[in-house]
Parts: sequence; C-alpha cells; structure tokens
Amino acid sequence: MKLAMLNTTSGRRIVGVEVTSGESSYVSLSHFDPSIPNTIREMLQHPQGLEKCAAAYERGVQTDQRIEGTLLAPIMRPPKVLCIGLNYRDHAAESGMDVPSEPICFGKFGNTIIGPNEPIRLPKVSSQVDYEAELVIVIGKSGYEIPQEKAFEHVAGYCNGHDVSARDWQIGRPGSQWLLGKTADTFAPIGPWLVTSDEVGDPHALDVKLRLNGEEMQNGNTKEFIFGVDEVIAFVSQIMTLEPGDVIFTGTPAGVGMGRDPQVWLKDGDSVEVEISGLGVLTNPVVAAN
Amino acid sequence: MKLAMLNTTSGRRIVGVEVTSGESSYVSLSHFDPSIPNTIREMLQHPQGLEKCAAAYERGVQTDQRIEGTLLAPIMRPPKVLCIGLNYRDHAAESGMDVPSEPICFGKFGNTIIGPNEPIRLPKVSSQVDYEAELVIVIGKSGYEIPQEKAFEHVAGYCNGHDVSARDWQIGRPGSQWLLGKTADTFAPIGPWLVTSDEVGDPHALDVKLRLNGEEMQNGNTKEFIFGVDEVIAFVSQIMTLEPGDVIFTGTPAGVGMGRDPQVWLKDGDSVEVEISGLGVLTNPVVAAN
Repeated sequence: MKLAMLNTTSGRRIVGVEVTSGESSYVSLSHFDPSIPNTIREMLQHPQGLEKCAAAYERGVQTDQRIEGTLLAPIMRPPKVLCIGLNYRDHAAESGMDVPSEPICFGKFGNTIIGPNEPIRLPKVSSQVDYEAELVIVIGKSGYEIPQEKAFEHVAGYCNGHDVSARDWQIGRPGSQWLLGKTADTFAPIGPWLVTSDEVGDPHALDVKLRLNGEEMQNGNTKEFIFGVDEVIAFVSQIMTLEPGDVIFTGTPAGVGMGRDPQVWLKDGDSVEVEISGLGVLTNPVVAAN
Repeated sequence: MKLAMLNTTSGRRIVGVEVTSGESSYVSLSHFDPSIPNTIREMLQHPQGLEKCAAAYERGVQTDQRIEGTLLAPIMRPPKVLCIGLNYRDHAAESGMDVPSEPICFGKFGNTIIGPNEPIRLPKVSSQVDYEAELVIVIGKSGYEIPQEKAFEHVAGYCNGHDVSARDWQIGRPGSQWLLGKTADTFAPIGPWLVTSDEVGDPHALDVKLRLNGEEMQNGNTKEFIFGVDEVIAFVSQIMTLEPGDVIFTGTPAGVGMGRDPQVWLKDGDSVEVEISGLGVLTNPVVAAN
C-alpha cells in the first residue's frame, strides 16, 4: 500500500491509500473502517493497524468512491527523527571521512518535517545549504534491544527523504556537533507516501536519485549501504526504544553539493526531487528566508 | 507558581499547583477552571494559559480543596529536548575542552524524559554512565529569530534537569556525535515542577547542586554560564522555531564523574538528587538493565 496523509478539499486530515492507476486518487480508509485513526502515526500505534488498513482498502477499491486532497508528510510529528551519517562508501570518500566502523547517529527535531511540495526555507544565517537524498525507514512496532534477525518485523515501510544540511553550521563549529546544521525548520522533507514493506521488497536494492532543477545530482543504490536497515535498527535499539512513527534517515550516496567542484548550494527558486525505486517522487521548492 | 503534572489517586492526569506550605499538596487547576487542559504542554500552547492558571490557583487556594498524586515529568513529551554543552567554564576545563565561542548544541529524543522518583535505567551496553545537574528552560511562547532582548518573553519557567550521559557512547566514537551517549531511555529526568519565571527571578544567580547517595558532587551557580538563557534562545532560534513545551538543558557545572580521579560512574542502587535554588529537589534512583 501507498499510505498517504491527505488534507481533503473539505479540510479534513485523513489517511488514504493511493489507487495505483496513475490518477493520484485515493481510497479514504476511515470511510471504510471508522476505527482507523486519522493520522498514519496513530494508526501505527494500534496493533493490527496495517492489517485493518489493508482490509479497508480492499473493500474501498472495489467501489467507485475516490477522494482527492493535498499530500502532507506521511508522519507529521515523528517521535524521533534519527539519521545515519556516511552510510555509503562513496559519500564517505567525497566527504573526506573514513568509512565508519559502526553507524554514525545524529538527530533532527520535529520542526524539520515537511511534506511534498512544501517549501524548504533557507535560513538567513546559512549560505551553504546542501541536499541529500535518503531512504527513510518508518518504524511500525515498538522495540528495545531488537535482535538483527527480527529487525524487519519492526518496519512499517519506507519513504523518500531529503536530509537538508546547512554545511556551514554542521561542520567546523565548536564541539563539532551536527545538530544545528541539520535541524533548521523545513530541513526534513518526507513523502509523498509511506510505502509498506511488502510492496517495497528488498530495501537493499533500491535506486536513490536526486535531481536539482531537473539535473541528476545523485544516483546511488541502497546495495551500497555500509550498514543495512536491520543492522541500523539492532544497533540503535541497544540505546533507545524505537516507537511506531519513528523515522530513520539512512544516509546519502555520493553527489552532494559540498563534494562538487565548484560546490553547489541550494538557492531561492530551486526545485529538488528525490526518487527512490517504488517510493514515488518527493518534490520540494526552495525559498529564501523572508 | 510551582506547576506539577500529577497522576491522581483516581488515575487521572491533571495540572496542579503546589501549595507552598511544605505539605506537598496541590490545587487542581481544571477543578477551578475547566478550560485548563490536563497537561502542562497543552496549557502552554494556549495564549494566556499561564494567566488562567494563576487565576484558577488564586480561587482554589482560598478553599480547603487539595489533591494529592504522584508527580510526573512536568513536560512528558517535549517537542524538542535541546541541550547546551560545556556552558560553565570549570566544566569545560575538567572535560579538557576549550571554552566555546558559541553555544554547543546537541539533542535528546523524547524517550529520555522521566519524572521525579522514576528510575534511571543503565543500558547494558554502557559501563560509563555519568551524571550532570542542569537548569532547564521551558519555552512558553513560540518564536523564530527571537531577538536577545525579547528572549525572556518566550520563557514559561524553569525546572531541575539531569542530563544523564553514557561517556563511552558520547566520546570517541566514529563521527564524534554525542547523540547516542545522551539519548538512552530515561536519560533526561526533569522536575519536580515547572516553576514559573516570576517566581524564579534572575536565572543567572541560581545554585546548581547534585548529590550522589547524599554526597555533594556538583555545586555551581548559573552566574558562571558562558552563554546566558537569553543568549541561548536568541542563538538557537536563528535555526529553529522554538515552541511551547520545548525544553533546553543549559549545561552542567564542574564535578561530573568523568572528571574525577578515580572516575565515578552511576551504578545499580544509586540515588541522585539535583537541587537548584527555588526549583525543589529532583530525585531519581538508578537501576541496572534487566
């Protein structure tokens, strides 16, 4: 299923499933099962939430009832926005960093999350805002100290993610912490959908592409991961309980603006597209601070 | 006011104000004004939320109606748990770090927050868990690019905070990011109350003490801050919108376990108390992982 958070024309927020007809129309799940909550995050908190969605979708798709709406971020306020750094060998190289011996973890706050077509806002205080296309894991089941062999049981699905990064705030500051460079408002576009695990298949065989104003800037594949989805989940859950709705950005392949000659920074009027196999296209315009 | 999140004997969660009689009894605010929400975070999201609380308290305290309950973290799920590192000159020195030229910012996730008397759980994978007593700012009003001279308008109040830190995960790992050492479950006790700004007075003249099993381990004063409350708010809001319920840990004075000879690490059965002038005492037991 391609689960979407929709702002309907009547102004309601609901969970829909995209009808795979290329029409961008949706089946409203709560219409066919009123017990399904109106956000994906709340739905994931219910045991059998995804099974209920599948059943409601099966009923709905056999009718001619479709809805339209504006797409929002599939998870609007994740409990955690956890990110893995330098998880592709080629990106570690272009960043001038060693290939890490264990996952490098950093975080963003919820103020960073935006949905498809919402603008990435350049902070006044940065002149080096960079793009990073990333596969995002969405956690569906709570867990602590999750064994690697059970890790996929905790994954609801995946979405495109864009780990926008102000390099002049991420790197070279006192204390060397990346947080401020990563957590500016609007710096974590995700979407357009949460695509469920069964539909994605092997998450370690997905093309990850990023286009800036139509030009391809990144073109990698998750088979190049240094640490796979299951390894990352097992590793971080030694420290923190993962919860339904948590999102994990899994790192970016080579081709970021910082590693180019000349370097490329996002500017007012740009348009950035992230496209990962089977996850649709996540498009966001870039705007200067007011 | 000393605002508390209470779990009442009847199992309801409500906002109370401590009656300053040394009796640890509370006035239930929603009892005297049903429009006051049942969490401090939601209350702060309403304009005039604090004024409503003050009015309800004034009515309630003139009656003999008191309630009791178990204290919870005053903000149970802050939108952000932002932390400032090395913000006291003496602690920077004991950590072997330069005095920073701007605030060093890192984050924790919401899984870290616990309230008074809740156990700090030592992760199995760490053998160097350290204590840090900290003044915590609680944001009361949303803002972006907040001028320093208006910063205090955005502060609802303060509470004691304990920035528990697994040094073996914070320091010396690939990528040098502190997140994993700081964001283990239960690693951010706060409380017992949110004490409103008017009652705290000057936040740059507060004694900050920590006792481990009754022995004083830290004894500093916020006059030693490298970056004051207003400076920190102005600085971070250049990057991120601050929201009601956000908490900002402001750094710790000297005396942490890592800087001692021999070093001191938290262990099963320990009891840690944080006490800041006017903010009460925050006590948490320490337990080993199961």
